[in-house]
Amino acid sequence: MPTEFRTKRKIEFSDTDMAGIVHFSRFFIFMETAEHEFLRSLGTSVATEWDGNKIGWPRLAASCEYLSPLRFEDEVDIRLCVTNKGTKSLTYQFYFTLDGKDIARGQLTTVCCITNPDEKLQAIPIPEFISSQISIT
Amino acid sequence: MPTEFRTKRKIEFSDTDMAGIVHFSRFFIFMETAEHEFLRSLGTSVATEWDGNKIGWPRLAASCEYLSPLRFEDEVDIRLCVTNKGTKSLTYQFYFTLDGKDIARGQLTTVCCITNPDEKLQAIPIPEFISSQISIT
Amino acid sequence: MPTEFRTKRKIEFSDTDMAGIVHFSRFFIFMETAEHEFLRSLGTSVATEWDGNKIGWPRLAASCEYLSPLRFEDEVDIRLCVTNKGTKSLTYQFYFTLDGKDIARGQLTTVCCITNPDEKLQAIPIPEFISSQISIT
Amino acid sequence: MPTEFRTKRKIEFSDTDMAGIVHFSRFFIFMETAEHEFLRSLGTSVATEWDGNKIGWPRLAASCEYLSPLRFEDEVDIRLCVTNKGTKSLTYQFYFTLDGKDIARGQLTTVCCITNPDEKLQAIPIPEFISSQISIT
Repeated sequence: MPTEFRTKRKIEFSDTDMAGIVHFSRFFIFMETAEHEFLRSLGTSVATEWDGNKIGWPRLAASCEYLSPLRFEDEVDIRLCVTNKGTKSLTYQFYFTLDGKDIARGQLTTVCCITNPDEKLQAIPIPEFISSQISIT
Repeated sequence: MPTEFRTKRKIEFSDTDMAGIVHFSRFFIFMETAEHEFLRSLGTSVATEWDGNKIGWPRLAASCEYLSPLRFEDEVDIRLCVTNKGTKSLTYQFYFTLDGKDIARGQLTTVCCITNPDEKLQAIPIPEFISSQISIT
Repeated sequence: MPTEFRTKRKIEFSDTDMAGIVHFSRFFIFMETAEHEFLRSLGTSVATEWDGNKIGWPRLAASCEYLSPLRFEDEVDIRLCVTNKGTKSLTYQFYFTLDGKDIARGQLTTVCCITNPDEKLQAIPIPEFISSQISIT
Repeated sequence: MPTEFRTKRKIEFSDTDMAGIVHFSRFFIFMETAEHEFLRSLGTSVATEWDGNKIGWPRLAASCEYLSPLRFEDEVDIRLCVTNKGTKSLTYQFYFTLDGKDIARGQLTTVCCITNPDEKLQAIPIPEFISSQISIT
C-alpha cells in the first residue's frame, strides 16, 4: 500500500486576498506544512542532522491545480500520497478537499541533500531509516 | 511574434527562509506580480471593471521548476511569455534568470471571469481590447 | 477577573528567514490568529454579520517587543488578555512564551466597525452579546 | 539635520486580504524593506560582513498606527527618519502617505549584532563608518 498521510488546516485571515478567497500561493505553504508533518510522523524532520551532516529537502518542482476556492475559517482536509520514490528524491501528491468537495490537487518533488552552511548543496541517497518507511504501489 | 514582457525583482529579506535562500512559494508571488505588471502594460488590471461588471483572472493552475537558488538582495530578471490564448483563458510561461543564469521556470494558467461580489464566478471571453493585444507564435 | 484566552502555535518553515529564526512580522500574524480564535470562543468571528450588516475589527495600532527568538518546530504558548474595553474598541495584550521562557510581548488595538462592501467603514458600539462576555480588572 | 530617506512601494495583490485592503502585518515588511534600502544607501547592508564577523540588525521592538487603508495598486510614499541613535541601537520612524494623505506611522528599534552562525547573538557598538553617516536633530 502506498504511503499516505492526512492532516487538516484551518484557513486564517491572512491566507485570504481581496478576492475574498485563499491566495493561490498559500496552497504551496499548506503542502509544505503537510510534508513536514509527514516527515515528523516518520521520526525525522525537513531540517535535521544525520551522520554528522545537516540534511534538507530542497524542492525541484511544485505545482497546483485549483478546482474550487477556499474561504476564511474553512477547515480543509489534506491527503498526502508519496507517488514516486527515487534513490535521492520523493514526489508527493496532495489532495485538498472541503467536506468531501475537491478543492485543489498539488504536487511537490523534493531531493534529499546535505545542506551544511557554506557548502554547495549535495544530493544524497535518502537515508535508509526514512526510505524503508515509504512504499509506493 | 508572441507577446512577451520583461521585469526585474529585488529579493527582500522576508522572501528568504532558514535555508538562507528564497522560499519556493515566493516564486508564485513573483510570477503574479509580473503578470499584473504585464496587464497594466496593456492598459488594464487584474482587478478592473468592464461593461458594468468586475473582471478578474482566477488561477486554474500554477507550477514552477527550481534550477538554482536566489538569495537576499539578488535582482532577478523575469521574462513572461504568453504561450496559450484560449477564448477565455491565458497561459503564461515565466523565465527567471540571474546574470544570465537560469534560476527557475514557471507557468500560470488564468481564466477571465466576472467577479462581482456575492455572485458565483463566471468565465467569459477575454475582452477584445485585451485579446487583440496578445499574440502567440 | 480579566478575560483571557490561551492557545499554541507550531512554527512552520515559512515563518523563518535567513537569520534562522522567525521573522519579526510573523508575530503579528500569530497575534491575529489568537485574536480570531478568541472571538470564535465567544461565539462570534472577526468577519461576521449582525443586525443586517457586515461587522469587522480593523486595527488601530499594533506593536511587539522581541525578547528571545523562535525557531522552526518550536511550539509557542500564546496568552491573550483583554487590557482595555472601550465602547467601540478592544485592546489585547499577547504574551508569547516557550517552555516558560519569555519570547515576545505584543499589543493590538481594534475597533468594531460596519464593513459593508462599497460603504465607508463606520465604527459602532461593540454588540452587547460580545461586550457582555469581556471583563477587565 | 536628522538623517532621513524616502522610498515608494507599489501595493501588490498578495498584500491585500479579504477586507479588500492591505493586511496590517504587511506594513512591517514595508518598513523593513525601506530600512534595508536606507542601509544600502549608506554603503552597507542589513546582512553584511565586517571585521571578520557577520553583522545583522535584529529587532527589539516594532509598532504601527493605522490611519487610513491602502489598496491594490496604490503607490505609497514612505519616509524613514532615524529618531534615536544609541551606541548599539537605532530607532527609525516611518511615515506612510498616499498623495499626501496620512496612511500609517510606524517605528522600528534595531540593535547592531554579531550574527555568526552557531554563536549566540552579541550586541556591538555600531561600526564607525555607519554611525558617522547618521545624525539626529
